[in-house]
Amino acid sequence: MFSVTVRDHIMIAHSFRGEVFGPAQRLHGATFVVDATFRRAELDADNIVVDIGRAAQQLNAVLAQLNYRNLDDEAAFTGINTSTEMLARTIADRIAERVHAGDLGEGARGLAGIMVTLHESHIAWASYERPL
Amino acid sequence: MFSVTVRDHIMIAHSFRGEVFGPAQRLHGATFVVDATFRRAELDADNIVVDIGRAAQQLNAVLAQLNYRNLDDEAAFTGINTSTEMLARTIADRIAERVHAGDLGEGARGLAGIMVTLHESHIAWASYERPL
Amino acid sequence: MFSVTVRDHIMIAHSFRGEVFGPAQRLHGATFVVDATFRRAELDADNIVVDIGRAAQQLNAVLAQLNYRNLDDEAAFTGINTSTEMLARTIADRIAERVHAGDLGEGARGLAGIMVTLHESHIAWASYERPL
Amino acid sequence: MFSVTVRDHIMIAHSFRGEVFGPAQRLHGATFVVDATFRRAELDADNIVVDIGRAAQQLNAVLAQLNYRNLDDEAAFTGINTSTEMLARTIADRIAERVHAGDLGEGARGLAGIMVTLHESHIAWASYERPL
Amino acid sequence: MFSVTVRDHIMIAHSFRGEVFGPAQRLHGATFVVDATFRRAELDADNIVVDIGRAAQQLNAVLAQLNYRNLDDEAAFTGINTSTEMLARTIADRIAERVHAGDLGEGARGLAGIMVTLHESHIAWASYERPL
Amino acid sequence: MFSVTVRDHIMIAHSFRGEVFGPAQRLHGATFVVDATFRRAELDADNIVVDIGRAAQQLNAVLAQLNYRNLDDEAAFTGINTSTEMLARTIADRIAERVHAGDLGEGARGLAGIMVTLHESHIAWASYERPL
Repeated sequence: MFSVTVRDHIMIAHSFRGEVFGPAQRLHGATFVVDATFRRAELDADNIVVDIGRAAQQLNAVLAQLNYRNLDDEAAFTGINTSTEMLARTIADRIAERVHAGDLGEGARGLAGIMVTLHESHIAWASYERPL
Repeated sequence: MFSVTVRDHIMIAHSFRGEVFGPAQRLHGATFVVDATFRRAELDADNIVVDIGRAAQQLNAVLAQLNYRNLDDEAAFTGINTSTEMLARTIADRIAERVHAGDLGEGARGLAGIMVTLHESHIAWASYERPL
Repeated sequence: MFSVTVRDHIMIAHSFRGEVFGPAQRLHGATFVVDATFRRAELDADNIVVDIGRAAQQLNAVLAQLNYRNLDDEAAFTGINTSTEMLARTIADRIAERVHAGDLGEGARGLAGIMVTLHESHIAWASYERPL
Repeated sequence: MFSVTVRDHIMIAHSFRGEVFGPAQRLHGATFVVDATFRRAELDADNIVVDIGRAAQQLNAVLAQLNYRNLDDEAAFTGINTSTEMLARTIADRIAERVHAGDLGEGARGLAGIMVTLHESHIAWASYERPL
Repeated sequence: MFSVTVRDHIMIAHSFRGEVFGPAQRLHGATFVVDATFRRAELDADNIVVDIGRAAQQLNAVLAQLNYRNLDDEAAFTGINTSTEMLARTIADRIAERVHAGDLGEGARGLAGIMVTLHESHIAWASYERPL
Repeated sequence: MFSVTVRDHIMIAHSFRGEVFGPAQRLHGATFVVDATFRRAELDADNIVVDIGRAAQQLNAVLAQLNYRNLDDEAAFTGINTSTEMLARTIADRIAERVHAGDLGEGARGLAGIMVTLHESHIAWASYERPL
């Protein structure tokens, strides 16, 4: 199995609901360094997993919808705790839609799966992995 | 599949028995930067894998039993090579006991598995992965 | 010249005023990984620059005043752009006060200077350096 | 499942054929920081996955065949795009041959699989994973 | 003293002349992860060292002149060993020209100095520092 | 001013004397990731600060005298707290002797200074800087 990963980041504000979150129930924020991993069993005719330029562009486009925002004000997240693990799934699902729509090129239709990891600090990160 | 990882570290002394270890048969030491990864198929009611605060506390509690010690003098390791990979299993097993004992909260009972990685330097690390 | 550095982090929300900030004029947030460096010309009687445990505690105490907050609501920052470089100075100055108050121990009175670096992402960071 | 990883690097020149590569069709180069991961279900009699010294030596030997070279001039790669993901497979396969030849020691015959990751920059990397 | 740093990278081919370079006399290549640090004594009216967006753009523009190229073929480097330290100076000098030309904004005229660091691998890097 | 840095590491055991060290008074250990930085005002005839191969070899040779040892048993450190900052000076001084003895080549006699940084974990490091 092959994989290719590209890295980008977002800077967002949000707050959490639930005692389990302690002081993170207050409005605060995070830089998420985001790694998007694309997997496939065999390389394509160009000997690659995916056009890495397009992969980086599409990751950037997905992140632009979240970047420099207060997630508490986003319609997509009304009443939802935007935890690091939940945002990993949101980003993975939005990239998956773009793969299926052909935004990463025809070759990307051969991708087997995707994993998204969000690093919230030097001591904590979360991932979500799914098939394509 | 979701995962959340927290990082901490220990600083220990130890020595190895066996020619394969070369100069590491002498009493020496290591900083192990320890990553504990918690996996589960679905998020809980708070939209998280595990209470990250409690996960960090329990990892720290497990590491406190090893930290600032000469592992050659620890009863748990008598006659055992405390290799990086073996310590990864020890730490994973001890965290697993705490998950089963409810120390990471009731929600943590839904965890599917755990992986522990010990970084012994910038050029070497070892992992152990197990179900819960 | 000797130095010792300890690392911690904060997660905050804020916004900027001024066209130069572009989309960062919106309410967003950041994880700042914070490095506090303590410098001195000669080591003390224990052969150290500073009690590293106390240095880490005091850095944590200074950061706790900022952590999990919306800096736009903090009285200390009314009408002020809480840029990464400006926050580096704020944190350095607050640590300096604690050094002068004896919070890092009597030995810390021999410190020559301090530098604080805030990493806002994997591709950007800012520092402030001052004498003590 | 246990794993041990060792890190080394190479510095090579190459070019790509195909419009998908854009400016990378020109002769350019890369530093690849290479991580070789060895997996096995159970530890051997010495409580290790593999002799880490021999693993590092064999990785270095495999990389020496590529290091400080223009891959466009290497017979092994004639007419082949030496993409990061393809080089990950080449290195993994060459290490696998050495495992099978006994170059990593008799104990290494118990290895279950290998993964090789090549980091081409701080924002992109690729992997290949295979059984042994 | 304040500083702000932005990171980018280039992927180039080159070779060296001189016995001291050993196998690096062959045509090979490198990824250089490039950090550009801007220093000034006092912050400007916006509370910043430099417009970080413009700083990143100008660093990228300077690097674009080198990226995906064989430096042995560049007129600027005819008969010159393009060592990591020498390239750090080249990049610093080209950024300095842009600062003086106003490309980083009027505020950037208050900058005191610049440092450029090129990381050639996980175990080696070089820097050049100059006043502005 | 130019600089070149090379990285290596050691794994040692030791203990400290003095209440300030708390649990680190027990025999424990550390991995020190060691960065040696060489500075000079102008490049030499080969366009370099120092022969990086020789610099790495000499750093390795200096570290070999400490590696895989219990520093409490070393004659050089009898009655001395082998703190991270003190070891940084020891390593810097030993490299300096080798520079003066010509072990880094004749060109290295033009070096202006050296800095050694020891990373003891992902959250703490210490440096010592001196002229040559």
